[in-house]
Amino acid sequence: MAELPDDPELTPTRYDELSSHDPVVLFDVLGSGVVAHVALVRDGEPIVLGTAYGFDDDFLYLHGSTGSRLSRDMADGRPLCISIATLDGFLFARTGFDSAVSYRSAVIRGSATECVDDEKVRALRLINENLMPGRWDELPAPTRKELAATLVLRVPLDRVSVKVLPHHDPEDDFDDGSGADALDPRLWVGSLRVGLAAGEPVASRGMSGEVPVPESVKRQMTRFVLPE
Amino acid sequence: MAELPDDPELTPTRYDELSSHDPVVLFDVLGSGVVAHVALVRDGEPIVLGTAYGFDDDFLYLHGSTGSRLSRDMADGRPLCISIATLDGFLFARTGFDSAVSYRSAVIRGSATECVDDEKVRALRLINENLMPGRWDELPAPTRKELAATLVLRVPLDRVSVKVLPHHDPEDDFDDGSGADALDPRLWVGSLRVGLAAGEPVASRGMSGEVPVPESVKRQMTRFVLPE
Repeated sequence: MAELPDDPELTPTRYDELSSHDPVVLFDVLGSGVVAHVALVRDGEPIVLGTAYGFDDDFLYLHGSTGSRLSRDMADGRPLCISIATLDGFLFARTGFDSAVSYRSAVIRGSATECVDDEKVRALRLINENLMPGRWDELPAPTRKELAATLVLRVPLDRVSVKVLPHHDPEDDFDDGSGADALDPRLWVGSLRVGLAAGEPVASRGMSGEVPVPESVKRQMTRFVLPE
Repeated sequence: MAELPDDPELTPTRYDELSSHDPVVLFDVLGSGVVAHVALVRDGEPIVLGTAYGFDDDFLYLHGSTGSRLSRDMADGRPLCISIATLDGFLFARTGFDSAVSYRSAVIRGSATECVDDEKVRALRLINENLMPGRWDELPAPTRKELAATLVLRVPLDRVSVKVLPHHDPEDDFDDGSGADALDPRLWVGSLRVGLAAGEPVASRGMSGEVPVPESVKRQMTRFVLPE
């Protein structure tokens, strides 16, 4: 996928400078998220629910229970809209109107196709890799029964809109010359980063104390650290 | 709102024990989130986008630009579905199939009504209070021009589904007697909490060093701390 195609439906009408057509930005957004919000239409009404996801260069992957109505709806070829958004911080601007959050987001539109056989196992691995990197290789392979109970879907990454509001000094938005002179000298203006951070791992009560914390847990602790 | 009504469309078909009808849980979920994902139907296709929100006992509040097509679509009375989900941690279970995230989520369905006059200002304050608690009172009141550029909407909290997977020892899910005996003695099983955490506030370059960090920024730093 060389370049993100335009999706006129999702081109922002304001803040045009925020939309990106750089695939590097898309994969940064996809890799920064843990939960995707998947929307579909059922009986004319919208439904949206959060779920885990995985991805490769060409597809986003989703999974669910074969017994779930939502999974079956997602699988039947109807249009889906999927949002992945990561909150990066708060911009404490000089007015409520200019207050904002910094974020990275991607919206993917398309229909799902069911993954079967080898592709199904590979897609499950990709979903697992985005959720808990490295864990898949530490665990036993999925059983036939587990695979039969799981519906795995792919959605092509060819109708994508990426929007990013970088973390920045909120005063940078005022390039009209009003500048610092317009600031109330008693009002603090600035920014505060936030991000997902991990606590300390807690071993199961049933475990012996001799099993070391594995690489997958260490990777998660490195992935989710206190922002600067 | 004494009790959350049932929404059969959203009653989970699995994990029934996870759905809650306790309003205390709903308001915990709403207060724990920063971004709501709002879905609607346009030309028969679903659209979903993340946005800030606020709430009181009876309504969820959303805002947008009067110039945005999405805001106008949201305001025209069509059905909306809104998801607010907070990730609480990762459950490193003994199989990929049983691996999971702990989370708290709420799904709200309904149509939006535009807020005007005093209710509009009050709703903007509530949105600001959920986004950056305490900041509203530090800032100048919104101007007429700012209010005219902002569309503010309310959606009733009377069609709500709340689902929570509490953070827990993944081995607690095996109450079938297979217990610790079934554990691979070399495999680490346990859990890892995650949560939004704040870094250090950065003052705008335009500011004098004499303005102290305000209560609103301190509150945000207390709200978003490293999980235990």
